[in-house]
Formats: sequence, C-alpha cells, structure tokens
Amino acid sequence: MKTRAAVAFEAKRPLEIVELDLDGPKAGEVLVEIMATGICHTDAYTLDGLDSEGLFPSVLGHEGAGIVREIGAGVTSVAVGDHVIPLYTPECRQCKSCLSGKTNLCTAIRATQGKGLMPDGTTRFSYKGQPIFHYMGCSTFSNFTVLPEIAVAKIREDAPFDTSCYVGCGVTTGVGAVVHTAKVQPGDTVVVFGLGGIGLNVIQGAKLAGAKMIVGVDINPDREEWGRRFGMTHFVNPKDTSSVPGGDIVPHIVALTDGGADYSFDATGNTDVMRQALECCHRGWGTSIVIGVAEAGKEISTRPFQLVTGRNWRGTAFGGARGRTDTPKIVDWYMDGMIQIDPMITHRLTLDEINKGFDLMHAGESIRSVVIY
Amino acid sequence: MKTRAAVAFEAKRPLEIVELDLDGPKAGEVLVEIMATGICHTDAYTLDGLDSEGLFPSVLGHEGAGIVREIGAGVTSVAVGDHVIPLYTPECRQCKSCLSGKTNLCTAIRATQGKGLMPDGTTRFSYKGQPIFHYMGCSTFSNFTVLPEIAVAKIREDAPFDTSCYVGCGVTTGVGAVVHTAKVQPGDTVVVFGLGGIGLNVIQGAKLAGAKMIVGVDINPDREEWGRRFGMTHFVNPKDTSSVPGGDIVPHIVALTDGGADYSFDATGNTDVMRQALECCHRGWGTSIVIGVAEAGKEISTRPFQLVTGRNWRGTAFGGARGRTDTPKIVDWYMDGMIQIDPMITHRLTLDEINKGFDLMHAGESIRSVVIY
Repeated sequence: MKTRAAVAFEAKRPLEIVELDLDGPKAGEVLVEIMATGICHTDAYTLDGLDSEGLFPSVLGHEGAGIVREIGAGVTSVAVGDHVIPLYTPECRQCKSCLSGKTNLCTAIRATQGKGLMPDGTTRFSYKGQPIFHYMGCSTFSNFTVLPEIAVAKIREDAPFDTSCYVGCGVTTGVGAVVHTAKVQPGDTVVVFGLGGIGLNVIQGAKLAGAKMIVGVDINPDREEWGRRFGMTHFVNPKDTSSVPGGDIVPHIVALTDGGADYSFDATGNTDVMRQALECCHRGWGTSIVIGVAEAGKEISTRPFQLVTGRNWRGTAFGGARGRTDTPKIVDWYMDGMIQIDPMITHRLTLDEINKGFDLMHAGESIRSVVIY
Repeated sequence: MKTRAAVAFEAKRPLEIVELDLDGPKAGEVLVEIMATGICHTDAYTLDGLDSEGLFPSVLGHEGAGIVREIGAGVTSVAVGDHVIPLYTPECRQCKSCLSGKTNLCTAIRATQGKGLMPDGTTRFSYKGQPIFHYMGCSTFSNFTVLPEIAVAKIREDAPFDTSCYVGCGVTTGVGAVVHTAKVQPGDTVVVFGLGGIGLNVIQGAKLAGAKMIVGVDINPDREEWGRRFGMTHFVNPKDTSSVPGGDIVPHIVALTDGGADYSFDATGNTDVMRQALECCHRGWGTSIVIGVAEAGKEISTRPFQLVTGRNWRGTAFGGARGRTDTPKIVDWYMDGMIQIDPMITHRLTLDEINKGFDLMHAGESIRSVVIY
C-alpha cells in the first residue's frame, strides 16, 4: 500500500513529505493508521545528527495515536478498529525484564528496533525501491505504519487522538517518572529542573501524587506561569541573582526545601544540571531521577560522599511505565480529569507543516506541537 | 580521672601512648571502659592526613566494645555495668532523620561531633592541661572514654569484647550494606569489589540474605580463599588477563552474571572501581552501593544513559544500621552463628603495640587487628 510520510533522508535537513510504499503486517504485526503525532525533542535530537546511532533515511516520530486497520497472523491482543498508542518501549510480558517486575524496559525486540528494523530484520517502508528505516519502533510521521503487536497499547475509544498521542511519550515520561519510578507520596517535596513539556508533566504528576511542595527551576521566566498552571508551588530562576546569589542554586534549594528535596527530576538533559539535581536532594534519603537525554559523550559526576550520605541517583525511561499495562491507564487519568493535556498542545499542524513544528520547538515557542493527519 | 590512651598528636606521626586526664560524664553522657578496639582504615585515613577535616591532637579509634562505668544526670537507657558498643552514628530517635524512618544518619549531635567535641561544645580529654579532641564521637583508643547516651548500643553480656568490637564499624558496615541498605533477597546476584574486611562482611551478609551468586573482585589472588570462606561463589582478578581480556571487567562480569548484578558493592574507595561497580549492574534494576571512602577531591562519573536504562547508584554509611536498634541485633546474629567474626580477627595486640596494627593494615597483612586493654 501507499502512505504519505515525512521522511528524514539525511541528518540536518528538513523532512520531506513524500509517498512511501508500505508492506502490510507480517505475523505478530499490526497496521495502524496514525491519526495524530506529537513532535518530540528526541525526534529533533536524531534529525539534528546528535544521536550517533541515528539511521537515515528513516521515518521519524514516536508519539502517536491511531486506529488498527489490519492485523497479521496470530495477533490476538488487538483487533481491527481498536484505538492504540504505538510504544517505543514495548511490553512482551515474556522476557527476563518484563517478568522481573522491576523494570519496564522490555528487551524482546530491542536489537532490531535499534537497527531501524522490524523484529524479522526487515523494514516495511520503501521509497522508489529504496528501503527506509523505522525509528524507535514507531515511525509515527507516516499516516500508516506497521508495528509489532507487543508495541501497541489499546486505549479507550472516546480519547481524542490529538491529545492522547502525547501520552505516547511526553506525558507518560513525566507523570510516570513521578508515579512509577520515584513513587512520590503525599507530603513529599519535589524539585523539577527544566519546565518544558516533560518538566510540566513531572509537575502535574507530583501534584497528582500529593506532593506538598513542588519547586520548578528554569532559566526562562515565562515558564513560571506554565509551571503554576499544573501545580508548581515555588519557582526558582538560576539567572535571577537577586534571589539566587551567584546563581548557585544548590544551597538555595536546600534552604527553600528545609534540608533538600525528597525527589528531584532532571528534565533538561544538561549534565551539570543533573549534578545540581542530585546535590539538592535531602541527606539520608533524597532521590534524584535523570529523565533528560544528554548530549553524546557527556558524563555526570559528583563526589561519592553525596551517595554515602544517603542520596540516590536513578533514571527513568518512558516514565517507568509498562507499555501495554500502564499507558492506557494514563489515558484514563486524562479522560477522568486527573491530569491535563489540552493546554499543553500549543500548536496543531498538518503533515505538510511538520518542519514548522521543529522550528517552534527549537525556538522554545511550543510546549507540544501535534501533527493531525 | 586518668586514662591510658594512644594519642595522635599530629598527622603522619605514630600514635603515642600517654596518660590523659578525663573528665567524668556530664548530663546525658556515660563513661565507658573500653575493653577492646579494632583498628580501621578510617583511623589510618585520618592519621595519614588524608582527611582534610581531621583534627589534632586527638584520640582516634571508633570500633570498640566496653562496659558502662558511670552515668551522667538524666541517663536512663543504659546503666552501670551494661556492655555497650560506642556509635559514631548515634540514634537519638527524635531528630528529623531518625523520625523519617528512611535513614540511619541521625543529625542530633553531628555539628559538635564533626568538631571533635561533645554535644556541649567541650572536650573531656586533656593532656598536661591541653585539650585533646574526640574522634568520630568515640575515641576508643583510650581505655576510658566518655560518650553521649544516644551514642552507645547496649549489647548482650555474653558477647566477647575482642570480636564484638568489630560490630562497631566493619561488620555492621558490610553486613548492613547488604541487609539494611540494599535489602538483598534470596536468589539475587551480588558482586563485591574489594575483599578487605568490609568486602568480606558484604560477602557474608549476601550469603545470610540468600544470594544465589556472590562474585568477589580483587587484584590480590590471596583474597580468593578468604572470600570463599565467607560464601563467595566466584572470584574475578582484574589483573588475571587470561580470564579477563584487557582487564576490562565490566563486560566480563556482565557475562558471568547473565546480564549484570542485581546488587554491586564498592569496598575499595577507588572512584574508577565505583564506576565499574555501577556499570556491571543489570539493565533495568541493578543497584550499586558505594561503601568505600574515596580520596579527598575524587569524583565518580558515568554516562547518564547508565541511569536512564535503569541502574541505581546509592551509598551507605554504617551499613544503613540504626545505631542503638540494629547494632545489638548484629551482635546477636554473631552469637547465634548466623555470621562469623572470629576468623576475621587476625591479630590481637596490646595498646602499646597499636602502631604495629597500623603497619599490618597498610601492608595488607591483616583483616582486622584488635587492641585488647
């Protein structure tokens, strides 16, 4: 069949809207009509050539929502017509990782996914006979895409596509980091570094979990209003040297939080900020969670004394959410009014306008741009 | 009163055995006759001038056992004649840390303890009228010492002093790191870096907790026999390049443990080893625990990807044990045969021979030397 798609033919070049050939689903696979897709920093990270493992030509996009249009042999967990969210973190429920009960990082198809291929080692996309790679196992910048059955989460049918697609990455990453990874409890003190889309979702996750104090940190003063909208109780701007002498925010936050954060989250991807996030945690138990993807080659550092005196350094991917089990629940939370998504969708674009979405993101003018097919 | 003590008059000089003046216990304090004391690397670290906060002249020693000989006003939790272990990590049961239930790092007397003083800001020791500092709130290199009531753990009277003193630091640090901090469970895979006294106690803690596979790592081949004695199942010598190509032990250990350790422990104090300990943990859930005290100024580093893919970096002090609550239980475990101490006490010395104990430790010839008064 044919599908319109935005193709990344090479790094550092705008996406091109073309018609691709798409092979139908093989055994254990499903064909999904993507109805909406968010544009995420990770797509830009790859397109900008910063990911040393980025593959081209490829169909980017990993934050979608759509409808199952065809199923391959042996598919039993979803049916034609089901509404689904593609999962870059699948959930096979059979591998050592899934069965451990301790991680959401299913390893069933990791090797081929990392190579831009379906689990059988081939690609379903081609352009004028040339193979085009899949991306993060999703490729939602195509009106139709093929996914392994274990990489789709069935969601309720009354959830709008243009907002629930955001659950496919940003919402789950932020809210899940709080609820699934940190397991923040009522009365806890939370500090969030970076108030982009992920950081705002951390804030609303912390509010949902009953955090008493939610401190947002950003160098952009405009983000204060955004943070307060989702439950932030205090704002710290490291560049505001009148309130943060010398810009050294660690002692400032430790004082503000009466000894340090119970949980801190880095949603910046900056390794210096990751260190600050750890060191502003409370002695004895404070836990810092790295969410942001750092620049290739960058490392985090601290004095081991920080750990010996009881701070914990952890990370999260896809918010610690098990793809098929937890993602539908986050859609439910949205539909039930427990979390918000609508105000975060700042721009709605057509596929032809997709490069504008990247421009808005780079300029810091969007929280989330969504392409609607 | 008078007490014989080994005094560190200044850094990098042998201890001197002299007679000190000792003031009796003030309100909330107790006088303890030290019956035995271990010589720990931390004493050497301070004596060698490596601790930038080390104070001189002082009475070192923090791993003792003894008998309460006098109590100050208001002391209710111990009585004259009680057998006790001095605690460099006290337990007031009233501060924010104690009441959190999440840490053993009581903060009640931290400020004065760090200054080598009793909680009222004075010292009980003096030599020819010159004040002598306390050390780690214990100063067990003195036949008699004064301690705050919250800094002694009452233990059973049938426990020998010359072995149970080791519970005052090394045993609790190693066994507790496994049992209290990591909470290793039956069937877990454990990797221990550094098979000195602490590492051997990690091994026996892992065995006690039911670990399935206990891998010991040391560059000294003589330590293999020691490790196996306490429950080690596999030994890795990074210098044995026939079994560890290029000495790169991370992939070697990941392969040996079928994907990585559930828990790893650094008992070396070497920050490069701390990194290896983290990176040999299992993707998704592996937790590495820093026990060793690093050289001043040294930092630990890794790629944040290690955390984002589910590894946890933590630390432990005094094995996460609450001083008054958990230390007596570890003595019970020893007396009940659940853990061993006797074979680890390789040398018994008099106070006059204390400098020999430091020499043995520096030469790697002792597991633990104990001074018996």
